[in-house]
Amino acid sequence: MSKKALDYAQGNRESALDELKSILRIPSISTLPEHAPDMSAAANWIIDRLDPLGFQGRAIDAGGPPVVYGDWLGAGAGAPVILVYGHYDVQPVDPLELWVSDPFEPEVRGNNLFARGASDMKGQIIAHLKAVEALKETTGIPVNIKYLIEGEEEIGSTHLGEFLRANEDLLACDFCLNVDSGVIGPETPSLTYAIRGMAYFEIRLEGPPGDLHSGIFGGAIVNPANVLAALIGEMHDDQGRVTLPGFYDDVLSLSDQERSDLASLPQSDEWWSEQSGARFLGGEQGYSATERATARPTLDVNGLLSGFTGKGGKTVLPSKAMAKISTRLVPDQDPHQVHESLRAFMEKNAPLGVSWEVDMLAAAVASIIDRDSVEARAAAEALEAVWGLPARYKREGGTVPVVGMIEEMLDVKTLMLGFGLPDDNLHAPNEKFHLPNFHRGIDTFIHFMTSLAA
Amino acid sequence: MSKKALDYAQGNRESALDELKSILRIPSISTLPEHAPDMSAAANWIIDRLDPLGFQGRAIDAGGPPVVYGDWLGAGAGAPVILVYGHYDVQPVDPLELWVSDPFEPEVRGNNLFARGASDMKGQIIAHLKAVEALKETTGIPVNIKYLIEGEEEIGSTHLGEFLRANEDLLACDFCLNVDSGVIGPETPSLTYAIRGMAYFEIRLEGPPGDLHSGIFGGAIVNPANVLAALIGEMHDDQGRVTLPGFYDDVLSLSDQERSDLASLPQSDEWWSEQSGARFLGGEQGYSATERATARPTLDVNGLLSGFTGKGGKTVLPSKAMAKISTRLVPDQDPHQVHESLRAFMEKNAPLGVSWEVDMLAAAVASIIDRDSVEARAAAEALEAVWGLPARYKREGGTVPVVGMIEEMLDVKTLMLGFGLPDDNLHAPNEKFHLPNFHRGIDTFIHFMTSLAA
Repeated sequence: MSKKALDYAQGNRESALDELKSILRIPSISTLPEHAPDMSAAANWIIDRLDPLGFQGRAIDAGGPPVVYGDWLGAGAGAPVILVYGHYDVQPVDPLELWVSDPFEPEVRGNNLFARGASDMKGQIIAHLKAVEALKETTGIPVNIKYLIEGEEEIGSTHLGEFLRANEDLLACDFCLNVDSGVIGPETPSLTYAIRGMAYFEIRLEGPPGDLHSGIFGGAIVNPANVLAALIGEMHDDQGRVTLPGFYDDVLSLSDQERSDLASLPQSDEWWSEQSGARFLGGEQGYSATERATARPTLDVNGLLSGFTGKGGKTVLPSKAMAKISTRLVPDQDPHQVHESLRAFMEKNAPLGVSWEVDMLAAAVASIIDRDSVEARAAAEALEAVWGLPARYKREGGTVPVVGMIEEMLDVKTLMLGFGLPDDNLHAPNEKFHLPNFHRGIDTFIHFMTSLAA
Repeated sequence: MSKKALDYAQGNRESALDELKSILRIPSISTLPEHAPDMSAAANWIIDRLDPLGFQGRAIDAGGPPVVYGDWLGAGAGAPVILVYGHYDVQPVDPLELWVSDPFEPEVRGNNLFARGASDMKGQIIAHLKAVEALKETTGIPVNIKYLIEGEEEIGSTHLGEFLRANEDLLACDFCLNVDSGVIGPETPSLTYAIRGMAYFEIRLEGPPGDLHSGIFGGAIVNPANVLAALIGEMHDDQGRVTLPGFYDDVLSLSDQERSDLASLPQSDEWWSEQSGARFLGGEQGYSATERATARPTLDVNGLLSGFTGKGGKTVLPSKAMAKISTRLVPDQDPHQVHESLRAFMEKNAPLGVSWEVDMLAAAVASIIDRDSVEARAAAEALEAVWGLPARYKREGGTVPVVGMIEEMLDVKTLMLGFGLPDDNLHAPNEKFHLPNFHRGIDTFIHFMTSLAA
């Protein structure tokens, strides 16, 4: 059914690569103000490609670099509406001296195309556009599509939440397809069906109003640094479980099928040791490293500061102590609920003699899609059709804030489907995109859209 | 018996004050190299006063500023030999703008003499020299005396240990009289019969070889900052007692008499709250604040550092975590034993996945004298004779390293007897010496020496 479109894609690989190279030449670095013109140039580049596809692309001012929006709803009411999310901004390139070739003059070396933004994520945008083009030029686009391509992902999607809220109707869809994603290995097709959320806190304790001499006052007063350490120590039990009240209440437990799928991934405990450099792993008992890092919630100290930290000794009883603590959350935990829980923990456990403040510095919800949903099945079938191997089901330990935003603002789930690789040097020198994956990506999107419509 | 000497002192108060002002004009700041000539000047000033007393003072090179030594053994074998310890160096004066008068131009305002070094501790040295002069000029000096007056106390008595070891015979004595001390209040004569020791540690934990992303690795690896906090938390039990193995084994417990004496000091828990600014006190259960701060051992965090401590959040799993931890020790705890104990604690409790190092940065033994010893009784009687009130028995929470050194090198106990006040602004702007205490100090030393010989 998608044969003609696949043949079209096959016959137009060179021009697809040329198009990718073309957008990669635009240094759309969102964090550097001097690149503002490049932001507009990249947005316009996409709009110029949307128009011939019949999408009526436009740049919408959302407070920062423009949001590119374009839709084609010609598949009619019987076909699903897909919101395709991507971003056209890229990370800075420093240290430039570590790049083998110019980050904004794309260069093919072996099977890879090297350029800033190749994998993260202009390559994924072009792959999807080229899949749409192949369908349009052959059997017709079988689904309704709305493109939402922002220019602020690398700087925290500052204005996206507001934009989503203000454009709820425009963006209404059956699900979001986030193509800012990847597979587990070049020959291992995989589908990320869950990502973790986060709640990041700063805890500040204060004891006596000023630092005191430990000889004179040591023993008489409550030392906030002692207290902070003890409180953090009490945040885990001896099984490595988090003790904040109700922390696990909303945690979706892993099914036997999921555990077996995760166990079959090429991510043994030895792999985690190699990746982290940690000779010994550890954490919540009863779970593998892959489960602990992707499917179980955590609580980690990210920073500690109190008292004297220079060379040698100073006999000070610190007046203050601070910890940065983040929790990685899994479905269906709510970061605001975790905040409440941490406050309840402090309320109950902080002793007289210290005052405390807890600020939540960041919050993002976790997300999971139903592996049996139409879109997830279509994605898995598409991957298998292209790679000739069944897709693996994986979860990601990191957080993709936009997924939570879209779930909250538009009330739809996000399917992550993209073709980057773990070694693509995202955010680092010599970013690359594995070209066989670029072309397989186009084919996968063709299969996916065709299969969705069927 | 000491009436004549007391009368002499009474009649020479003005010249005693002039002598004190004279030495206070020498800016003998040991920590500032540009004051090296002043160090020699201060040493020579004392030597010049020892000679007419018959003491053959001399400056001995010990590697830093000279040590002043002078002895008079004319009281014969039947009389005790007292090693009088003091120091002629003083603290820096900054912030100079906070001084009401020039720190090195002594000024009497009301009952106080203001100058750097007035209370810490040139005033105490002159008081003792003037007591000796009064005895020599009247009834004769009834005891054998060796003066040991160093110039490095304010910078850690760097060369004193070596000097003591090298001059064991020269310094042989029955006990040391350390006049670098004070009383509890202007109208409250008191005797410090015990001081705490210290063992100061730096603990460094290391997990994976580099910082890791908490989204990718959080849950899989052992976070050294989590571990450090938990370990510190485990160092106290829920009664506020230190859990290092054997920590209390050598602790001399407080007798009922001691507890009653400490309870009668004008240092209620309210007083400790006021002094520290801490609204709520806390610590080891079953002891008063005075007991906890002066007669019980402690373990306190002095500093904590790990990971990201700037503004906002960074999702880092720190590779390293560091704590400065000090224990205040009481007789008969041994700092080296505590070091071993901490290492045993770490050995037992640190999990796989972190490596650790413990360095002892400072060690000083605690000290206690027998309140029924001849010298302690003589001191208490002298205080009562001069003030007309019984002396209070108190303990100090701070550490006086030289006391430990002298105990270790010369194998004698130290009696602390001096006349500073808690509000003398030691190490701070507007240091002062309470002049009535200066003169009572001379009288007390006269009584003390006379009584000792009796």
